Amino acid sequence: MRAAIFRGGEIVVDTLPEPKPGAGQVLVKSLACGICGSDLHARKHAHHMVRMAERVGRKPMDLARDIVFGHEFCCEVLDYGPGTARKFKPGTKVCSLPALLTPTGIESIGYSNDNVGAYAERMLLSEPLLLEVPNGLSAAHAALTEPLAVGVHAVAKANIRGGEVPLVIGCGPVGLAVIAALKIRGLHPIVASDYSPARRALAAKLGADVVIDPARTQPYTTWAEHAQMSPEEKAARPPLQAHLPALKPALIFECVGVPGLLQQVFEGAPRDARIVVVGVCMESDKSEPMLGIMKELNVQYVLGYTPDEFAHSLRLIAEGTVDAASLVTASIGIDGVAQAFEDLANPERHTKIIVEPWR
Amino acid sequence: MRAAIFRGGEIVVDTLPEPKPGAGQVLVKSLACGICGSDLHARKHAHHMVRMAERVGRKPMDLARDIVFGHEFCCEVLDYGPGTARKFKPGTKVCSLPALLTPTGIESIGYSNDNVGAYAERMLLSEPLLLEVPNGLSAAHAALTEPLAVGVHAVAKANIRGGEVPLVIGCGPVGLAVIAALKIRGLHPIVASDYSPARRALAAKLGADVVIDPARTQPYTTWAEHAQMSPEEKAARPPLQAHLPALKPALIFECVGVPGLLQQVFEGAPRDARIVVVGVCMESDKSEPMLGIMKELNVQYVLGYTPDEFAHSLRLIAEGTVDAASLVTASIGIDGVAQAFEDLANPERHTKIIVEPWR
Repeated sequence: MRAAIFRGGEIVVDTLPEPKPGAGQVLVKSLACGICGSDLHARKHAHHMVRMAERVGRKPMDLARDIVFGHEFCCEVLDYGPGTARKFKPGTKVCSLPALLTPTGIESIGYSNDNVGAYAERMLLSEPLLLEVPNGLSAAHAALTEPLAVGVHAVAKANIRGGEVPLVIGCGPVGLAVIAALKIRGLHPIVASDYSPARRALAAKLGADVVIDPARTQPYTTWAEHAQMSPEEKAARPPLQAHLPALKPALIFECVGVPGLLQQVFEGAPRDARIVVVGVCMESDKSEPMLGIMKELNVQYVLGYTPDEFAHSLRLIAEGTVDAASLVTASIGIDGVAQAFEDLANPERHTKIIVEPWR
Repeated sequence: MRAAIFRGGEIVVDTLPEPKPGAGQVLVKSLACGICGSDLHARKHAHHMVRMAERVGRKPMDLARDIVFGHEFCCEVLDYGPGTARKFKPGTKVCSLPALLTPTGIESIGYSNDNVGAYAERMLLSEPLLLEVPNGLSAAHAALTEPLAVGVHAVAKANIRGGEVPLVIGCGPVGLAVIAALKIRGLHPIVASDYSPARRALAAKLGADVVIDPARTQPYTTWAEHAQMSPEEKAARPPLQAHLPALKPALIFECVGVPGLLQQVFEGAPRDARIVVVGVCMESDKSEPMLGIMKELNVQYVLGYTPDEFAHSLRLIAEGTVDAASLVTASIGIDGVAQAFEDLANPERHTKIIVEPWR
């Protein structure tokens, strides 16, 4: 079968052996797979990613061997391995979180030498993890389940108590997913910031109430204008807090993931802010702990999602609660993957590019 | 009056004008004042502290002018300013959080050019903040209210749900206060780590169940041995978590406050650990955000305490719930402060040195 392969630091197209489903596994055809920012990061910082995996005791990728990325996918059931219930008929459209159950444990799909991701024509999934795509939902939109789940999870981990005013820094696919998830939670106003006009337009479309161009306006100043306490809230504060700015609680989502960004958030954040780090910064970073200390900041790092959050995200798209379609800016075949990795550098042109390996 | 003054980067003894109580203020005699690690930090990193205060919008110290440190104090009421209720008779022993209410707002005591701290013979407090020291409690022990409140606050901000196994990194006065506060909350086993045998002995005395010498044993390995889930907890985990180590939730208190320490915690911490940063690191720091992300760590920076936590801490000492006396390793006069700053570098010799300016 054909696949776009991460080999020697580049994305190349080549043929690979056909995958054979083991016990409990399902052979599927990759219908649609989003290109994730983490794939771009992984190509650029693969060695760092390997070192980090080793440090946290996960099985690292062997960069001398082939890897097929692609973990935001919708597939079609083709065939079953032994020990399966054959729950879904061949031809059924399915999603799955990108994990494979093997006799020796759970392995990842997409950042693995053993388990090809969905930039290949065919791949293996585990039957117990399959979710049927509700009737009528296109594969390209069902493939957005994974990135939406990242936003749903980030908002769940934010431990919302009510009354917070959220600020989303960065409106790439992750920031947009966070905005969509915040809208569902009913938190208002949602303030969002991005340098790109196209991304700001998408942020507004997905639920941001206030969009900021940080080149023109300081995001934290604009946030503060929209986070003023009511006169009642102001009056209810303890006397020793009367000298502090009368602001509602801040909930800041860092959805950029580059070095220096968290420090910027530390500088801009108001006292007692809760910061959710959703952007995946793969390099070392510097910060001033004193800023965190003097403001009593809380930083919640997040990654991934639970199986329930994943299934919930698929329903949100299928039921039209989240307008996933507006994220997709192009569809390409396997031969277009390398170019798409370059094209995604321009936020004006692209948000989510969908790979359709069958093209 | 005489005072130990921070002047030109050093601690010198000189005379200062007598303070005059303004409206709502009380003239007090400093009976006892602990030397805080932050005072040692401030002497070494004063310029950095000024820059940080500016960055978070607090009034910074002017290092060209005199400053009198000392914010862990017990005092005796001498006289009152205008507009006071004269609630406590002259001679009454009182504590107060180190803040002064002025017509223009709240100002700090001890890191201020205007409000001398308790390394001076006399100082000003605000009448509404005074707490009478319960009968019989010595001034030296009442002065430990402030550092204990730091531990009580850190534990309160840790958002304990029950079932966590705490690990305290560093058993200086802050770490010991955290251990005392954890003991009161009934969380067990309390695991604590320090290079100093004297500090480890104190940690055990104040409530640590397991004490670790990190030069001999990896703290996180020992922690994990004491944090194994019961067979019931293990069986209750979701199927997709079955491959993860079966550990109870980790609650790590970073009570050292030097660069690199938080990164060490990131490396050692188990998945989903909550980290409370109580140590005050006044320098820039580096970290690997990917470790935080892959483990979904939570970092809560804390500082200070609420008025309620402060009052509660005084009661804990007065009622004998916390054995404050064991922390005090020396008492000195004003002339001994400069030497005491040097002596505190040796954790074997000293934990808390009490300044008694009337000596």
